[in-house]
Amino acid sequence: MSNCLIGGNLISSPPAGRGEFNIAGSRPEWWDMPSCAPLRLMHLRFTEEELSVLIDMISLAAEVGSLNRKPGAKENFARFEELENTILEKVTHLGFGDIIEFDEALQRYRVTTDYLTRSFVQEAIDEMRNEIFWEELTLRLAERDVIRKIGLPAWNSLDEEKRKEHTKPIEKSYWEEFTKRGIDTLHLIARFETG
Amino acid sequence: MSNCLIGGNLISSPPAGRGEFNIAGSRPEWWDMPSCAPLRLMHLRFTEEELSVLIDMISLAAEVGSLNRKPGAKENFARFEELENTILEKVTHLGFGDIIEFDEALQRYRVTTDYLTRSFVQEAIDEMRNEIFWEELTLRLAERDVIRKIGLPAWNSLDEEKRKEHTKPIEKSYWEEFTKRGIDTLHLIARFETG
Repeated sequence: MSNCLIGGNLISSPPAGRGEFNIAGSRPEWWDMPSCAPLRLMHLRFTEEELSVLIDMISLAAEVGSLNRKPGAKENFARFEELENTILEKVTHLGFGDIIEFDEALQRYRVTTDYLTRSFVQEAIDEMRNEIFWEELTLRLAERDVIRKIGLPAWNSLDEEKRKEHTKPIEKSYWEEFTKRGIDTLHLIARFETG
Repeated sequence: MSNCLIGGNLISSPPAGRGEFNIAGSRPEWWDMPSCAPLRLMHLRFTEEELSVLIDMISLAAEVGSLNRKPGAKENFARFEELENTILEKVTHLGFGDIIEFDEALQRYRVTTDYLTRSFVQEAIDEMRNEIFWEELTLRLAERDVIRKIGLPAWNSLDEEKRKEHTKPIEKSYWEEFTKRGIDTLHLIARFETG
């Protein structure tokens, strides 16, 4: 199956009124079509329930992808956005039109904000931010403390498991403090910097 | 289209050798089929390139969903895992078998660890953790500082925009500090707690 019907039609029947068609000779101006290797298309079948989960999953993945600001990530993220757009456009015609809208400014389909906020997607994002924040905070502080104590060369010589042996008890004590008081006691103290 | 062929076949032609078939009378033991509403199945067509992006997106969404430990999230996450499994099983037979494996312990398909670590999925997760950590850290510290200064009742009476007016300059100064020194100067100081 080819998704390149215009090119295919051109070759088998050149438009009327253009005169003789000579495949070996110089090409008329309308010949300059995009190159067109036949694309293999694959079908996946979904139930309505599965499609609704698929919409949530690709929306979530696109949201997460958009957080990546590393150089070079832009292109990968564009592929996410493109597929999100393609799938959302398709399912608009499969009974999901009420939760999908066309963003005129960005010229792409997206799930409505109303749907997003009451779906599992928003909940998953909020909860993920919370989980990641506390995990990263305790881990980074614990690693910082260990490195300060044993020195960076010693830290660098440890494997993953040995590092964990050092950080685990410190992570635990930070975790206990944060469980009790949140970030109430967390402050920038310049004098520790050189100590 | 129905995915319930067994039931359909039974009704239109009862198996041979079972004697008279009386739809109104008592039902033979083999009658007890699962209830079977016909499922509407919908097709989506993908190019090979789109399928490879789809695999990345659903893997990423499943990873993110698994971070959600809120009560009630388990069921929603199970729907993510189930669709991930269904799609991965299908695409295994569509030329993606080399990046997908069957996890015997969990009895489900997953992308291989080798693929995951060198794909955009792992990069997106790592970068997301980093972005979220610094965003949440500066925002939470700034909000904490503003609430300490103006008091919780005043904070609660502010709308989103007014809150941002208060937090933005403080976020900015935390951001500058973290850009220079990371979390080097960040410490737990108990005496601030009651101040």
